[in-house]
Amino acid sequence: MSEFISFPEWLASHTQRSEQALDALLDAEATIPTRLHQAMRYAAQGGGKRIRPLLVYAAGELGDASPATLDAAATAIECIHAYSLVHDDLPCMDDDDLRRGRPTVHKAFDEATALLVGDALQTRAFEILALADCSAEVRLSMISVLAAASGSRGMAGGQAIDLENVGKKLDLSGLQQMHAMKTGALLSCAVQMGGIASHLSQAQMMHLQNYSQKLGLAFQIIDDVLDVTSDSQTLGKTAGKDAAQDKPTYVSLMGLDYARKQAQELQVEAIASLASFGSKALALKELALLMVNRGK
Amino acid sequence: MSEFISFPEWLASHTQRSEQALDALLDAEATIPTRLHQAMRYAAQGGGKRIRPLLVYAAGELGDASPATLDAAATAIECIHAYSLVHDDLPCMDDDDLRRGRPTVHKAFDEATALLVGDALQTRAFEILALADCSAEVRLSMISVLAAASGSRGMAGGQAIDLENVGKKLDLSGLQQMHAMKTGALLSCAVQMGGIASHLSQAQMMHLQNYSQKLGLAFQIIDDVLDVTSDSQTLGKTAGKDAAQDKPTYVSLMGLDYARKQAQELQVEAIASLASFGSKALALKELALLMVNRGK
Repeated sequence: MSEFISFPEWLASHTQRSEQALDALLDAEATIPTRLHQAMRYAAQGGGKRIRPLLVYAAGELGDASPATLDAAATAIECIHAYSLVHDDLPCMDDDDLRRGRPTVHKAFDEATALLVGDALQTRAFEILALADCSAEVRLSMISVLAAASGSRGMAGGQAIDLENVGKKLDLSGLQQMHAMKTGALLSCAVQMGGIASHLSQAQMMHLQNYSQKLGLAFQIIDDVLDVTSDSQTLGKTAGKDAAQDKPTYVSLMGLDYARKQAQELQVEAIASLASFGSKALALKELALLMVNRGK
Repeated sequence: MSEFISFPEWLASHTQRSEQALDALLDAEATIPTRLHQAMRYAAQGGGKRIRPLLVYAAGELGDASPATLDAAATAIECIHAYSLVHDDLPCMDDDDLRRGRPTVHKAFDEATALLVGDALQTRAFEILALADCSAEVRLSMISVLAAASGSRGMAGGQAIDLENVGKKLDLSGLQQMHAMKTGALLSCAVQMGGIASHLSQAQMMHLQNYSQKLGLAFQIIDDVLDVTSDSQTLGKTAGKDAAQDKPTYVSLMGLDYARKQAQELQVEAIASLASFGSKALALKELALLMVNRGK
């Protein structure tokens, strides 16, 4: 983030850049099979805050990442995120009709198409990284961290733990492990990919990991807070569904006030981890403030 | 295939090798989340003829591929194949209860778990390739061809075309395009990955592509023939379901006799494409005979 632009300007320009990268790297709607490619764009381009791409771009300012590499990383991780949302919304999972204020993919198209959309968005994520315009080592490193963060020991595994525990009394450490896998791993991965593209040292990567782990946890706590305190229109998805499904949450385990306090403390610790990067980490710092203060 | 062992011996030893590679490269059942990892192994290790791994190993005999690279390639492509079967069997797709003579994953576990099993097997495929013990170029090349063969312009795209055409009058060229994407792409990919691991020249890769395209088409024609002429127990899956679902097939478009004749001609052409490889291509030749003559 240059010293000459404000964070709102950075945010607007990088959100736009993430949309442009998605538009450029997804298959055109006219590509056969057209209905599938339309549905893939519907799923990936239907708005959203683009938090993961923004984390990629922000971490990409810490070193010498090329713009094209960051665009590939940002798009790949957003494809993974979009695939997970499409599959989560299916009737056999959360059975949700509303996502980002619009009908979910299986409502706008059909269930079988939604299944294939998720499958093909995941494949495209890895294809984009394999074909990215950077060194073979950077590409393979990004593919490895994305696979680890999204597979059975990451996001998909967190989903499985979530499913197993509906209606059960998960304790706080169990809840943290579940969220660390289900949402934390992919948020951390976004920051890592930006760092890999920037050719950071191992010590620098450790600082980034510390930042992203604290931030991921704070983000999920706030998600649980908002699920209780906000309405569906503001969230762009169905509010109160965790309580309705009797799922354990930070709010149900900690209470609302303590959950908010914890999120604030984690935010402070996350930002402190960026100290050694100086002003290069301004965008990462501002994103941490934005992600934890949302809904205020 | 060494001159000193017979093809049945080669087949038995390489089928076993493919099982061992799967066992070594899939996460252990004891890894958390245990239920998901158990279900992933149930899906991938439940038998099957291992045609794609065998094609990888057979093509891997044409050059200087390392055993570890071939094991990674064989396991990755079998993970993709297994994921596609798990998702295809779901109620919103083919709604099948039987696969390889056992309950399908969503019957043995549940739908949500089956969805995650497919998702996570796909991820694992790319992770295995990214971490394979060979040059960065070979790894990236294998990831690229696997993504292209399995994504929206390959297998998943073929599925989408198949869905769109249930009950419609797809003509022969439409049917061929659909099958080339739905099953042909992954069979070709198996051969290609073996060739990439063997560091073959571009001209040699062209011969392999010719072989695998003819073989893939012949294989699908025979699949349609067997769907009509065989029973569920012999197939290990529900027989007669294409006709029951009013799907166009080679048999419904060509008639049984002509379909069989076409498959034989394609088999001969596929084998002819291997001429320049001499005795190194013995296993590929025998696999073509096996794949097209099955059910006889």
